[in-house]
Formats: sequence, C-alpha cells, structure tokens
Amino acid sequence: MKLRISEIFGPTIQGEGALIGKPTVFVRAGGCDYRCAWCDSMHAVDSAFRHDWAEMSAEDIMAEVRRLSSGRPLTVSISGGNPAIQDFGLLIELGKQEGYDFACETQGSVAQPWFAELETLVLSPKPPSSGEETDWRKFDRCLENAKGCNLVVMKIVIFDETDYAWAKAAEERYPNLPLYLQPGNPEVDPDQPVDLQAAIDRLLWLIEKVTGDGWFAPHVLPQLHMLVWGNKRGV
Amino acid sequence: MKLRISEIFGPTIQGEGALIGKPTVFVRAGGCDYRCAWCDSMHAVDSAFRHDWAEMSAEDIMAEVRRLSSGRPLTVSISGGNPAIQDFGLLIELGKQEGYDFACETQGSVAQPWFAELETLVLSPKPPSSGEETDWRKFDRCLENAKGCNLVVMKIVIFDETDYAWAKAAEERYPNLPLYLQPGNPEVDPDQPVDLQAAIDRLLWLIEKVTGDGWFAPHVLPQLHMLVWGNKRGV
Repeated sequence: MKLRISEIFGPTIQGEGALIGKPTVFVRAGGCDYRCAWCDSMHAVDSAFRHDWAEMSAEDIMAEVRRLSSGRPLTVSISGGNPAIQDFGLLIELGKQEGYDFACETQGSVAQPWFAELETLVLSPKPPSSGEETDWRKFDRCLENAKGCNLVVMKIVIFDETDYAWAKAAEERYPNLPLYLQPGNPEVDPDQPVDLQAAIDRLLWLIEKVTGDGWFAPHVLPQLHMLVWGNKRGV
Repeated sequence: MKLRISEIFGPTIQGEGALIGKPTVFVRAGGCDYRCAWCDSMHAVDSAFRHDWAEMSAEDIMAEVRRLSSGRPLTVSISGGNPAIQDFGLLIELGKQEGYDFACETQGSVAQPWFAELETLVLSPKPPSSGEETDWRKFDRCLENAKGCNLVVMKIVIFDETDYAWAKAAEERYPNLPLYLQPGNPEVDPDQPVDLQAAIDRLLWLIEKVTGDGWFAPHVLPQLHMLVWGNKRGV
C-alpha cells in the first residue's frame, strides 16, 4: 500500500504546541478534507500540487526518516494536509521497532485506529476564520481512538475575537485536554520574508487577551519555525 | 518570618523552558549565591539593589499573588536570584490550599525540603561562560529533595561552544532529566531595545548545532518574553 507524501524533512525543531523545541523529522502527508482560508501548507492540501507528491510505502518513508536522522531515534511528526485520511499504522509500527516515536497533527475530522499507537496526538480543530466547521462527534471519535497515547492535546489558531471566543468554548467542552493557542499567520507566501515584529505583535495581542481575561488554561505560543525561517519550506 | 522579594508580577506567560507559554505569576526572590557574568536579573542578585527588595511574609506574598490573578489559581513561578537560599515552604503551602501550583527555578546549588511540594522544579546549572562552577553533589541533593515533584527538568543557557560541550556532558550525567537549552542573551540592558533578528539568529545557531550533531535529547527554545518585551521588567 502506498501513501501520498508531500515532503519529508528534518531534523529540525518542532515549532508549535506541546512539543515545541523538540528535534523532529516531519512526514507531511499530501491531501486534505479541509480548505482552510489561511492554510499555510497548500502545497500539501490542494490536489493541484498532487504531481509533486510522492507515492511511498511505509518502508520507503521509514528509510528516508532513518537517512535524515542518521539512524538515531527521535520524534517523527506526521502532519499534512490531513494525515488522518491515510493509513500510517504500518509506518508507526516500523518506526517504533527502531525506537522512533510518533506524533500526529490533525484537525480531528477523521478518526484512525493507529492514533492509539502514537506518543502524542495534536488535535487542531479549525476556528471560524478558517471557513471550516468542526463536527464534534467526529472529534470525539478521534479522542476515543487516542486512548493509548501518552499525550493528547488541543491546539487552536487564533486570528480574531471570534476565533478567541470559539477557543474558549472549545476549552469549556474539553477542560481536561491541555490547550495550546497560537496567533494566526496571515503571511503565508513562501517567497516573501516574514515581518518579525508583526509576528511578535500578534503574539503579544494574544498573550494580553488571555492574561487580561484571567483565562489561565491555555499555553500561548508562537510558531517558532516561522520566526526563525519565515515561510521557507523544508525546515 | 520575612522573605526578601525583588518583585512580584504577572499574570504573564512563562517565557522559557518546560512551562513555556503558560500563564504565570512570578515571585522573584532577592539575593543569590552566584554572580553569573551574563546575569539578566542583577536587580534581584546584587545586594546593591537590596533597598529595592521588600521584606514580605508568605501571607503578604500570597495576598499580592491573589490580587494580581484576581483570585483565579494559576502557576506561580518562584525565581530570583536564587530562591533556594530562602524558605518558601509556607508560601507554597498557603497557595496550594487555594489551588495555585508552584514552579521554582534555581541553579541547584542549595537544596530545600520544600522542593518536594512543588509542581515543577527547574534546575538550571550554569555553564562555564557564567564564571560559576557547579557542585554536582549539591545538585544531586536538590534532585533528592525534589522527589515529590510532578516534573523536574534541567535548563541550560548556551553562549558558546564550551557551554554546548558542557551541556552535552550534563545530559550524559542526567539522561533521565528532560533537558531544555536556550541561547544566551548578551543584551541585558533594560533600557536598550533588543535586536530581534540577532536573538533569532542565536536561536538558529543553537538549533543547527543540536540537529546537525544528531543530538535529539534537548528541547531548544528561545526566551519568549525577551522576544516580546525585550529586557523590560515586570512582564
């Protein structure tokens, strides 16, 4: 069985969320059931890019992960697109045999049995600014499938007040899920440099919202890779 | 019994290490047994500033924490200076009764029985560039006292290759302690703006060292508060 892969890169550090700062190899799956208005990975989402995606077996992928990491086990993050529309069970099984551990990032629209084999599952439901709507029954099914995971967290991107209120409601719905908020990034052109100060200002806005409201549940974090590399791909 | 307190501020977010991004009130103790060459908190270290420090009881401190957080429990980070030269046991006891949890950041030169009551203990031994030397027997005593903690981590600031090699040796010594590395900040004048790009470049240098070496144990993180607020105090 072949998997559609947009890119495999690293080791770099995880730039977001619960594993921020952790050395990671990324396996970015091609294809997505969502079309978020502000998607920063359209090259892994839009089927117009499908000719750039490789058809790879789990063994092929693992060989590339092994090559990039010189055979030294580390965290492999399966991202996308939405990786949950494909079957990464065998990849995870192969990698774990060699000591690698796996994280997966998905919006929570499709539940997979292989979630249970992950070390970390990051569910990132998309707020109103994305133009997508969350089906919480499907999200709940993802949570059920993730029962074997060491860590399950929720990560929400915040562009505006509406997203912020939506994130608060999501936290009330799932008070036991660790929550990570990050400011949205409206600058997603890989050929344009990122305005560092503007990115920091968006982070400051979100920090002040959260602390000013006395809402102490979420972690507030930037996209570190975006601060370091802008929207450059492969890092 | 009174405690020497340099400042109490927040809620803001934790800018460093294992709790990065977490809403936090900081209780910064006055006084330190170290004089690190690059200390960014000399106002809490040098006894020349002792007239700015307040003598506060644990009840006084807790009243201020409560006021700042509007009585909503959050993480209280006890930092310094070296907070471990004073007795924060009663503060922690009082705070925990109201649902607050406590983190403490210390170099690991003085062990305290109240370490066991913390949620998180961050031990940050100082690398050679600091001009200080670590007594690992004292560090080990801190670890012993921290046995009740939910999380004990090691955080090391890296200014140069010598620090980097030293951190690697520390990780070999304590392979089971989660390790956080952060690039050193040579710009510590609170009245001067921080050069954001230079700070990002130092982070990039450290990320490339770690990933290039295939050293996947440490998390590599910036000082987020420094990116957001520069060296401004009280945030």
